[in-house]
Amino acid sequence: MALELLPPEADDARLDRIRKLLVDDDSLVERVETRERMWHCGIYDAEKWMVTQPDGQLGERDIVLHHGGAGVCVVRDGCMCLVRQYRVALGRMSLEIPAGKIDPGEDPAVCAARELTEETGLVAERLIPIAVSRSAPGFTNEATRIFYAEGVSQHPAAPDPDEFVDVTWVPVDEVVAAVRAGIIEDAKTVVSALFAASLGNA
Amino acid sequence: MALELLPPEADDARLDRIRKLLVDDDSLVERVETRERMWHCGIYDAEKWMVTQPDGQLGERDIVLHHGGAGVCVVRDGCMCLVRQYRVALGRMSLEIPAGKIDPGEDPAVCAARELTEETGLVAERLIPIAVSRSAPGFTNEATRIFYAEGVSQHPAAPDPDEFVDVTWVPVDEVVAAVRAGIIEDAKTVVSALFAASLGNA
Repeated sequence: MALELLPPEADDARLDRIRKLLVDDDSLVERVETRERMWHCGIYDAEKWMVTQPDGQLGERDIVLHHGGAGVCVVRDGCMCLVRQYRVALGRMSLEIPAGKIDPGEDPAVCAARELTEETGLVAERLIPIAVSRSAPGFTNEATRIFYAEGVSQHPAAPDPDEFVDVTWVPVDEVVAAVRAGIIEDAKTVVSALFAASLGNA
Repeated sequence: MALELLPPEADDARLDRIRKLLVDDDSLVERVETRERMWHCGIYDAEKWMVTQPDGQLGERDIVLHHGGAGVCVVRDGCMCLVRQYRVALGRMSLEIPAGKIDPGEDPAVCAARELTEETGLVAERLIPIAVSRSAPGFTNEATRIFYAEGVSQHPAAPDPDEFVDVTWVPVDEVVAAVRAGIIEDAKTVVSALFAASLGNA
């Protein structure tokens, strides 16, 4: 199936079945009874929730609350713009699309445009939503909004003082090969690579 | 680009450039000085790490450590197998590929096969790695290993007693439309849908 680079249509009839499947179902819904904050920091909150399960039993849920992020897939001449950075949580280097954390209440597209320009100096005429990537809905509400950039031009970059990044351009087919080999793993970058490949960029 | 359903090749020459870009770079590497556990639960550890940044300054990093998970993309007659469940961290229903948490030290493919059978009763002859999805490498090491199932047959399901799920089959093109519309957001499911579509399943 060739994907199309159109903004998603709210009235797409293909969504009817899935919308129905996503309506709250009493046989599956858990009700939150209490929430307790166990740890708070600048990046996330760790909470313990007591819930009533669909069978009426009480259950404990360990939750991480996070404001989420936004990232941008930029493809030019068959190459994807990737940011090379060290990820201390993984203990190694990582290649990822330009992205950053959303400030509370911030429009994801505004965040995406800001991070794109700060990290790479690129400015896009238009950012088209590709997908939302929720990392691990079993324990966190973290979500990254992913956009596809059109009409990109180069300006000076201005990374945050404590952000150490290096911008590189890699052919889309190499990024996809690295996704298949499991050496590019970042979810927003995996999604962007598969999307870019399906657009015929590789 | 049409993707191929082959196991990733370790000697793929298309990986050379990316492997070099992923070698530790002193101008980007952060060194961990101290780690302090701030909160521990059955699902994750919340830690505060002090690091030496590439510029020699000390920095604080708020980290969530998690054992990760594994999931399976199953496509039959153009339809994807999805599990309908309530995600309390999101406060709503979610449609996701069959998946679950990896036990410490467990082989991801073994975990994927077990979760597939428990949740859906499906048994696969072969599980081919598609991709690894690291949710948010900025703050967590959480990773979900995603497999594509071949030679699937139906057996009885046996979900965990505290797991409330409902199995459904949805045409791949509808899943992709829901990804584009941002109503299917789970990262492992987004990756699986784009991959399945690129294989010509939709």
